[in-house]
Amino acid sequence: MSKEITSRAQDYSQWYNDLVIKGELADYSAVRGCMVIKPYGFALWENMRDAMDKMFKDTGHQNAYFPLFVPKSLFEAEEKNAEGFAKECAIVTHYRLKTDPDKKGKLMVDPEAKLEEELIIRPTSEAIIWNTYKGWIQSYRDLPLLINQWCNVVRWEMRTRLFLRTAEFLWQEGHTAHSTSEEAVAETRQMLDVYADFVENWMAVPVIKGVKTESERFAGAVDTYCIESLMQDGKALQSGTSHFLGQNFAKAFDVKFLNKENQLEHVWATSWGVSTRLVGALVMAHGDDQGLILPPRIAPLQAVIVPIYKGDQQKATVDAKAKEIIKQLKELGIRVKYDNNDNARPGWKFAEYEMKGVPVRITLGARDLENNVAEIARRDTKEKRNVSLDGIAAYVNELLAEIQKNLFDRAKSFRDEHITPADTWNEFEKLLDEKGGFISAHWDGTAETEETIKEKTKATIRCIPLNNPQEDGKCILTGKSSKQRVLFARAY
Amino acid sequence: MSKEITSRAQDYSQWYNDLVIKGELADYSAVRGCMVIKPYGFALWENMRDAMDKMFKDTGHQNAYFPLFVPKSLFEAEEKNAEGFAKECAIVTHYRLKTDPDKKGKLMVDPEAKLEEELIIRPTSEAIIWNTYKGWIQSYRDLPLLINQWCNVVRWEMRTRLFLRTAEFLWQEGHTAHSTSEEAVAETRQMLDVYADFVENWMAVPVIKGVKTESERFAGAVDTYCIESLMQDGKALQSGTSHFLGQNFAKAFDVKFLNKENQLEHVWATSWGVSTRLVGALVMAHGDDQGLILPPRIAPLQAVIVPIYKGDQQKATVDAKAKEIIKQLKELGIRVKYDNNDNARPGWKFAEYEMKGVPVRITLGARDLENNVAEIARRDTKEKRNVSLDGIAAYVNELLAEIQKNLFDRAKSFRDEHITPADTWNEFEKLLDEKGGFISAHWDGTAETEETIKEKTKATIRCIPLNNPQEDGKCILTGKSSKQRVLFARAY
Repeated sequence: MSKEITSRAQDYSQWYNDLVIKGELADYSAVRGCMVIKPYGFALWENMRDAMDKMFKDTGHQNAYFPLFVPKSLFEAEEKNAEGFAKECAIVTHYRLKTDPDKKGKLMVDPEAKLEEELIIRPTSEAIIWNTYKGWIQSYRDLPLLINQWCNVVRWEMRTRLFLRTAEFLWQEGHTAHSTSEEAVAETRQMLDVYADFVENWMAVPVIKGVKTESERFAGAVDTYCIESLMQDGKALQSGTSHFLGQNFAKAFDVKFLNKENQLEHVWATSWGVSTRLVGALVMAHGDDQGLILPPRIAPLQAVIVPIYKGDQQKATVDAKAKEIIKQLKELGIRVKYDNNDNARPGWKFAEYEMKGVPVRITLGARDLENNVAEIARRDTKEKRNVSLDGIAAYVNELLAEIQKNLFDRAKSFRDEHITPADTWNEFEKLLDEKGGFISAHWDGTAETEETIKEKTKATIRCIPLNNPQEDGKCILTGKSSKQRVLFARAY
Repeated sequence: MSKEITSRAQDYSQWYNDLVIKGELADYSAVRGCMVIKPYGFALWENMRDAMDKMFKDTGHQNAYFPLFVPKSLFEAEEKNAEGFAKECAIVTHYRLKTDPDKKGKLMVDPEAKLEEELIIRPTSEAIIWNTYKGWIQSYRDLPLLINQWCNVVRWEMRTRLFLRTAEFLWQEGHTAHSTSEEAVAETRQMLDVYADFVENWMAVPVIKGVKTESERFAGAVDTYCIESLMQDGKALQSGTSHFLGQNFAKAFDVKFLNKENQLEHVWATSWGVSTRLVGALVMAHGDDQGLILPPRIAPLQAVIVPIYKGDQQKATVDAKAKEIIKQLKELGIRVKYDNNDNARPGWKFAEYEMKGVPVRITLGARDLENNVAEIARRDTKEKRNVSLDGIAAYVNELLAEIQKNLFDRAKSFRDEHITPADTWNEFEKLLDEKGGFISAHWDGTAETEETIKEKTKATIRCIPLNNPQEDGKCILTGKSSKQRVLFARAY
């Protein structure tokens, strides 16, 4: 093996880091809590971004770009939002460095270049965007305003993990403005569906759609909808959120419109976002002890061809055949690489592409060619099969679709097996410690109980699933009456 | 007219701002020197970005993402680079806000949350990237390393202008590492050619390729190559730069590789970038007193269809025909919009799309339809023509190509007419004040003379053109001997 990976059983957390680093998705950087997204990881993110961007545009949204900085006076305008992010934001206070008189060749912050008003680096852009929308919205004819932005944001988290929680991360944030509450709620739900569609059908990760409890809501939202997915260690991961913001930001920034009855009303708002965190979800949902397993639809490389030969004559034969196959694969739109690097042995290459999670490997051996076959290995099940070169491209194409489906089905089985009802506190604690996953349990609906459960077990209410069946029961902790079960889990 | 524009003759600078704002490319923001890129402007930038991104990938580059922040100790490592950017950088000094005890509902910077080391917001990323490359490069087998990043950067400019000079702007920055000086120089030149290709063939703006004098060089570069274009007011605009960095950054960050002879050597570097500034160049190169004129290849909308009808029956006929034409245009890959908004009159729409620079307008009148024709107006020359509906899509497609060519030819004629030789100082000053454009004049090669000329006239040496003819002459200012003419201009 080219690179050692810690097994999941041994140390799940280290296994995750190994996959990210050795799979060349990302690297640590010199900046506390910030990562470098490496070319392979960025190509993956580009595929994810492009797929979502098309979905946003297909649902009528346009991209725009708003400033990185939020002046403090705007930042604090929506009080709950400000309170939610104040404790973890990067603040620009000066705009110039000067030569340090005491240290040769060193620079220091120039105390004379202090900003009159501090600038917060956006942790999210509601404030700067709603301040802008004020100038753009006058009448109902200006609505709905459906805008999305792809950008970097900064949240000064104390404990960071590659992709899952970094001080700076890349994301998209949609910010829409509507003339009615109903329309804004419909938009919030529509974007939740778009996220679920993307995560399930492109990333092959099953999700549960739900709504957050009040204490888990986005700071400044009336309702936060979310999609929750399950990782292999039984912990949940919030994969995307869509917020109905009511008129909170419109009121904070005084954004009104003249309705059809010629009356001034505050505008209704939504915001929704997913981030590079999804890459972390992908790694943890599908990877195994040999490395990454990437779903074909978003994999930077869908197939790799590894040649095996001895001597120039065999090489020429294999090269020629590889060229033919690549042409056929590319005609089907398959992203394929021919790794004819002479400096590495085939075994090393096998391990390398296994590590990188390339869905299909085609081994083109000089001797196999004599029989008109190639060996095809699929990354998800590790099955190998000799396949006739006639129609090999069509075979690979179908196999990619099958792998995509299998990854989803496998993750869904695992997820479904890990939604467990609990009816007593003992059961609840035991399930959390021994089985993990989502625990479906009654809750009395109070923030106090939610908090106590979190303190006792580190489990939080991940969501109240949409269309949740109503059923009488008693709260798992307090025994008070409850009308429905909610989903608890320990989470990333 | 729907919106008033200042004419170029009246106030060129105000004309530019009017086009940007009223053409809905961008808007001012609440943050000093930062702009909001509006959906129409961002769609234009996306088209530019995507075209260039493909060119970068076709020449073997991969995208990646590096941190927004540069710790001060890394920032100051390459001394000239640090010196060049120290006076205009945004500095993060704190990571938390707290409730202001003296002002209810207000926040203040928490003095206890001061960073141990200040973070500079990247004005350019050589420092953070070369610090990262140190860990990625060991042997000649790791080279060349060909990486590009699309991101935001911040330079705290005192005087800003929409797109042309903003505190935050979007750009791409390529950073490559090579095992030989020759290879790095070849990369620098290759990327200059890529930029010239893009700006000329997509933006329809002719450029002059050249090399900068020492005083105009990028801070930290051995040589800066550039493409220079000419605006309609006779001022030059630097549209892209490609730097040969020698071993400066490799030495500052101690990046060495083991060569084929098993000896350690410092790596050779390049960097190259273009930014949203190009949007400003586009506006100023092609616009007229009615608004923007966008080159078809990058225009968000290439054609717009405006219906004219009275009553429901005519509306139905026109709608049906429009649908047919749109289908035909889309089949040819043409980006088309049907503006059937009932709330605006056709005349208002004509002015609006003229303002927005949509290359082709198709007016679909109910009466014209009876004769099987539509009126086609081209934005560049404002010519109108009745065109048979049979084959109208093919006609529009050819017209778009013709407009693209005409815009380039027109800008090139203007540019070529504005490269004027000057042989005396009087002539030089007179040309600058009365004609503008590039002035081709002898220069004695010293930074002092360059500086004096700049002080006296505000003109700078834009570049020494590539393959510049060598000719004996005397410096325009000092009369000292000179071997070649260089291009002077006042510039943005």
